[in-house]
Amino acid sequence: MVSLKSLSRMELNAFYQKALADYEVCKEKKLKLDMSRGKPSKEQLDLSNRLLALPTDGSFVIDGMDVRNYGMLEGLPSCRALFADVLGVKPAEVFVGGNSSLSLMYGVIAKAHTHGLLHSEMPWSKLEKVKFLCPSPGYDRHFTICESFGMEMIPIPMTPEGPDMDAVEALVSDAAVKGMWCVPKYSNPEGIIYSDSTIARIAALKPAAPDFVVMWDNAYCVHEFEGGFVPFKNILSECANANNPDMVFEFASTSKVTFAGGGVSCFACSVDNMKYVKKLLSAEAISFDKINQMKHVLFLKGRETTLAHMQKHAQILKPKFDAVMDALDRELIPLGVADYNRPMGGYFISLNTLPGCAKRTHKLMMDAGVIMTPVGATYPYGLDPEDKNLRIAPSFPPIDELQSAMDVLCVCVKLAAAEKLLGE
Amino acid sequence: MVSLKSLSRMELNAFYQKALADYEVCKEKKLKLDMSRGKPSKEQLDLSNRLLALPTDGSFVIDGMDVRNYGMLEGLPSCRALFADVLGVKPAEVFVGGNSSLSLMYGVIAKAHTHGLLHSEMPWSKLEKVKFLCPSPGYDRHFTICESFGMEMIPIPMTPEGPDMDAVEALVSDAAVKGMWCVPKYSNPEGIIYSDSTIARIAALKPAAPDFVVMWDNAYCVHEFEGGFVPFKNILSECANANNPDMVFEFASTSKVTFAGGGVSCFACSVDNMKYVKKLLSAEAISFDKINQMKHVLFLKGRETTLAHMQKHAQILKPKFDAVMDALDRELIPLGVADYNRPMGGYFISLNTLPGCAKRTHKLMMDAGVIMTPVGATYPYGLDPEDKNLRIAPSFPPIDELQSAMDVLCVCVKLAAAEKLLGE
Repeated sequence: MVSLKSLSRMELNAFYQKALADYEVCKEKKLKLDMSRGKPSKEQLDLSNRLLALPTDGSFVIDGMDVRNYGMLEGLPSCRALFADVLGVKPAEVFVGGNSSLSLMYGVIAKAHTHGLLHSEMPWSKLEKVKFLCPSPGYDRHFTICESFGMEMIPIPMTPEGPDMDAVEALVSDAAVKGMWCVPKYSNPEGIIYSDSTIARIAALKPAAPDFVVMWDNAYCVHEFEGGFVPFKNILSECANANNPDMVFEFASTSKVTFAGGGVSCFACSVDNMKYVKKLLSAEAISFDKINQMKHVLFLKGRETTLAHMQKHAQILKPKFDAVMDALDRELIPLGVADYNRPMGGYFISLNTLPGCAKRTHKLMMDAGVIMTPVGATYPYGLDPEDKNLRIAPSFPPIDELQSAMDVLCVCVKLAAAEKLLGE
Repeated sequence: MVSLKSLSRMELNAFYQKALADYEVCKEKKLKLDMSRGKPSKEQLDLSNRLLALPTDGSFVIDGMDVRNYGMLEGLPSCRALFADVLGVKPAEVFVGGNSSLSLMYGVIAKAHTHGLLHSEMPWSKLEKVKFLCPSPGYDRHFTICESFGMEMIPIPMTPEGPDMDAVEALVSDAAVKGMWCVPKYSNPEGIIYSDSTIARIAALKPAAPDFVVMWDNAYCVHEFEGGFVPFKNILSECANANNPDMVFEFASTSKVTFAGGGVSCFACSVDNMKYVKKLLSAEAISFDKINQMKHVLFLKGRETTLAHMQKHAQILKPKFDAVMDALDRELIPLGVADYNRPMGGYFISLNTLPGCAKRTHKLMMDAGVIMTPVGATYPYGLDPEDKNLRIAPSFPPIDELQSAMDVLCVCVKLAAAEKLLGE
């Protein structure tokens, strides 16, 4: 195979006709496949079923308290210690919540609006304009939170080392810029790991806003599917060492460790932030579900056991990611009509088509019965400036369905690329 | 015994000396007792342990979906149906959340501030002043939510039929009055059931604010400890029939049915409200814990099974409430130094001392090792205008501890009353 761009017009036309015929064959199969969300598969969920039967001894007392009753807003001490162990922070820096780290993130942004953060001069709702830095492509639900609060999102280009820090450093001199989303390990969707230098520059930011907040969504902190565990920096101590102790909230959860719908989430922050936020949270809740926290403590135990458990996920996920990447490497890369970063962990593959081809590819796929994440979703306001990014979520479908879906995807990318080049 | 007020000064002094001596005896016992919060006891929590082992067949599919995975923000259809059955509303009117109905209440008030409610002209955070009606004595955590958002709380006197509706109807003509807290059945702390006429007048309110919201906290809807189940009105249909379909959010939970810290909560509202709020909530969460929702569906099944389960709670709670009320009836009522409403359900007894005696009684009790709900907590801003209300929470302590605590309480009320009358 040679690059599509190097073909003569006649060759390109032949390529197009072939792709169109292949596409019609796909459509006739009347598929119904879904690669839209980063959901664990049934096999992955089954890995943690034993958790649901815990405790086996019928004792509901841990850390000296009955987990079935009210109390302990900040979470079970042993569950705080579990997350501290996994994240490399101190237990006193950890708040354990309910089943959703997204809710905890929303909570921080919501409280910034209604009450202000620790160093806020006033609640953000009183401000004319609040801007937020959004490394893109990024996680659509982060952007939805910004949009829900009417914040102005500023897209930040992603580099292979993480967000473009030259851009970030320049923008934070604007006092209306109040924060930044980060998925530092296996970023959603590209699977990029922020480099040490990027992390150091983030920790050392000198924002004009005294209440600038780094929303450090460490969703995939132990989520390698290829190779061994990759250590990550403790962003809390990085910020503290750079004289920004209160600038960061780190988030994590067991949604992709145990149960996507019934895991345990947490945030980690400085002890001063903890004190401030806990007071605000005490108006909102008496306590989160400590029964589930206890189950997780008994099941995951600590960092080593958690990492061993994640290897079981890896064994299920790796063949699926390989199937996707093999198809891309075989069908698209040699043609020069797509590229992607090869992730070693996380839940997504971020595919870039030729500029201007993502929407068309997405539409072709939908018409052939394959549902993808809505095109543009990985950008603020759903606006992909080059209309080229497609997010592939390989975790949920069985591998045979995934292969069928990838066949369709490859045909659609080819067809859209050929249409585009013929139209130029 | 005769009323303390009818005693001569010498008799009163003798009474005082006796009470003081009794108090010193109490203090010497160095008790450590807690009657401060409405927590279920261990025996009550044990009633639901079987829930934790469900499902017994290892199937995590219900309503056609795997409860362990993401999805279904509004809750499992069968769990919505369960709450609908208990509350007498329609499943489409029910949203099932996490373990805390307080969080759902906070969420409605928070979203009113950040986004506005369905009929808001603007978010409440943009308004100069937001006022909220607070029937008092009432639930301290309702007042804490108001205080957290800087709302001006207006106390509404409670009558034996519920809030003083003449006062409420007069106040809602102020467009700054945005809503009202209600605990319609076994009100916290007095255990009053709102009368049909009160409920009809609430449903038919004509508030000046288009987004006036009735926060209908039906926390004790099936929580009889004495006698059979008392039916309650469907506040949603009451409001709809009075042309106020979107004026009410009803809240309930299983915190005092299954597990205080690990139950399931819900709100019920009009379908239009549901649509509006669900859109806002979709920025905050992907879904709540459906595993726990499923467990509750399998355990509680429906209204009849739930009521039968509540009878088991009643058997544990009734002797405790009887112990408290027996002590009050025996030691205090004949002296004319206290009165209370005799509840048939709920979690509290609201004791009124002589005016000006609550703080002193509370202090005396604390010094004798008995912790009570902070005095004033049942009023907005912690300000009991007559300094007379004490909230007794009999559910948690074992009955012997409860009796010891009541001995102390009765002595302290007598002592404080005698001090007060001697000082007049």
